[in-house]
Amino acid sequence: MKVDGRHYRSIWLEPDGRSVGAIDQRRLPHEFVVAKLTSCEEAADAIRTMLVRGAPLIGATAAFGVALAMREDASDAGLDRAYRTLVVARPTAINLKWALEEMRTTLAPLSRFERTEAAYARADEIAEQDVAINQGIARNGLPLIEGVAARRKPGEPVNVLTHCNAGWLATVDWGTATAPIYLAHERGIKVHVWVDETRPRNQGASLTAWELGHHGVPHTIIPDNTGGHLMQHGMVDLAIVGTDRVAANGDVCNKIGTYLKALAAHDNDVPFYVALPSPTIDFAIDDGIRDIPIEQRAAAEVTDMTGRTADGRLETVRIVPEGSPVANYGFDVTPARLVTGLITERGVLKPDRASLAAAFPERIAAE
Amino acid sequence: MKVDGRHYRSIWLEPDGRSVGAIDQRRLPHEFVVAKLTSCEEAADAIRTMLVRGAPLIGATAAFGVALAMREDASDAGLDRAYRTLVVARPTAINLKWALEEMRTTLAPLSRFERTEAAYARADEIAEQDVAINQGIARNGLPLIEGVAARRKPGEPVNVLTHCNAGWLATVDWGTATAPIYLAHERGIKVHVWVDETRPRNQGASLTAWELGHHGVPHTIIPDNTGGHLMQHGMVDLAIVGTDRVAANGDVCNKIGTYLKALAAHDNDVPFYVALPSPTIDFAIDDGIRDIPIEQRAAAEVTDMTGRTADGRLETVRIVPEGSPVANYGFDVTPARLVTGLITERGVLKPDRASLAAAFPERIAAE
Repeated sequence: MKVDGRHYRSIWLEPDGRSVGAIDQRRLPHEFVVAKLTSCEEAADAIRTMLVRGAPLIGATAAFGVALAMREDASDAGLDRAYRTLVVARPTAINLKWALEEMRTTLAPLSRFERTEAAYARADEIAEQDVAINQGIARNGLPLIEGVAARRKPGEPVNVLTHCNAGWLATVDWGTATAPIYLAHERGIKVHVWVDETRPRNQGASLTAWELGHHGVPHTIIPDNTGGHLMQHGMVDLAIVGTDRVAANGDVCNKIGTYLKALAAHDNDVPFYVALPSPTIDFAIDDGIRDIPIEQRAAAEVTDMTGRTADGRLETVRIVPEGSPVANYGFDVTPARLVTGLITERGVLKPDRASLAAAFPERIAAE
Repeated sequence: MKVDGRHYRSIWLEPDGRSVGAIDQRRLPHEFVVAKLTSCEEAADAIRTMLVRGAPLIGATAAFGVALAMREDASDAGLDRAYRTLVVARPTAINLKWALEEMRTTLAPLSRFERTEAAYARADEIAEQDVAINQGIARNGLPLIEGVAARRKPGEPVNVLTHCNAGWLATVDWGTATAPIYLAHERGIKVHVWVDETRPRNQGASLTAWELGHHGVPHTIIPDNTGGHLMQHGMVDLAIVGTDRVAANGDVCNKIGTYLKALAAHDNDVPFYVALPSPTIDFAIDDGIRDIPIEQRAAAEVTDMTGRTADGRLETVRIVPEGSPVANYGFDVTPARLVTGLITERGVLKPDRASLAAAFPERIAAE
């Protein structure tokens, strides 16, 4: 997608054919800085410090990290060391482990003289595969937006609400929840996105608003408290969010607060869709609410806020009283009964056990 | 309630018998500063600049403002001028107008030599009346907390979730939503309060957490996104919130985001109560969702955040991308069907037309 009129991905191979470029997402929305990763350690640091974030992007970064490692030491020991360095950078990200296994499976049978070139090729494939999946999500989600647009008077936008950042910055390109939105925008459909701020880390206000704004998609940032009121007054046509994990029964784990928006959508007959690449479905988890563990994160994400002062300095300020405890649950689980459909690269699926199993027979066989 | 071990109200007559003390709520939670109001203009400024806020407290401040005015000019013209100065300080606050009408009705028939003393006496009565109403809310709400406590193992707290600040800082003392909580705490019942941050103005994190902490009530600040997850996992026993206006049909207008918490409470069988002084019921409004106008407030409340830096400076920072529009709806309306009960000074009422009319026959007669 575009930044200041120029096409970007969130990660790419630099023209030198060796080093890897990535947008430093820690600096957004206040500064647009491109980082150059030149070693496996730098790639691991980028993941650890959240210079890159978003499960698909973490996977792609790890894959390029292995390629960078091969340049320095393509021996079996070097491959092992790269794997071990990268796998601990964000221990809970499933895509990270998946990408590293892919790289190891590809490289292990090769001689060390072939590994560097093969590593770059496979990392590139992993990135391209993410883009292709997201384009599939875009195509499958597009008719949902087109359906609303067809009922609109000319000039009236389709209003989509989203939560957190399931945008192109979380993937290599296109995003998941944003993919149908970007495609609709490209097709000339008038779309307007209500962007939930998404406290406490503000990924909506900091990242989703930034990427929509730079690509030219009309949007409005709202406090997380606002969505219910908008839906009650007919100001939201559909909601599309991303997800970190979908259970076999269709329950959806996503950024904390998603459940509240799903409740409001249900109460006001607003369709509530979840967009995801199919590897996000975890057939080993039978009941999402009961079995998906919810990460508790650092208090500082709630107590402190970083932004830019009127005279341009970046400052971090404390916004709660000294001595008041805070709780910071990272995710919640939306029961399948509140989800209208799961937008995947294989189509829009009903969020239930039978539909998921029918769409992914090879996954069921593998469990 | 207490601040650093000493009992405070939010507003009081100073020992000099003339000037009026008030806690400067703009500085909380970062600084505890007492302001001294010595003229009608200073009282109007305090209301306008939100040095004081909360409908009952605004009413009391306006009443004292008239008393301060009478010291300078107790003529009919002086009384008129005081009324006109104060009534525009926050045009939408119903209690402001009510308190000023009360003051005028009391003072107009008196000679100008009697007015100053009578004004202070009536202002004091208005403040005391607010405290008495809130103590009534406390007594009527207490059994709801006691009921949960009776089912608890010793040492396990009753978990109450609240939104925004309907605490003693919004009133003269006790608060509305917090009144039953403070009374339970005084009676030795173990209570723990989940405090919604309440974006965008953060009244929960800034004011409710501060007042609960200073009074010694255990509490935890949570992002507004969190309550649904807590309710889903049995971590909330009941919700108590305040309200700005209740319609004749029981619909509840309150700080934006209240509706989302009411939906989550309903979905998880968590009782959802609204605490209010009865003047907050507006029998002239028949249907809350249809007829209560929702104020849109300044974008800066969403785009900017003020807090304290690590080295102690107060700074305001911008937290959204340049050029991204924001929307800031101040309130939402929770349909009566989601409200378990209205805690008033006349008892806990069902949120429906018949129950409200039966409890306030004199109000119905007056419409």
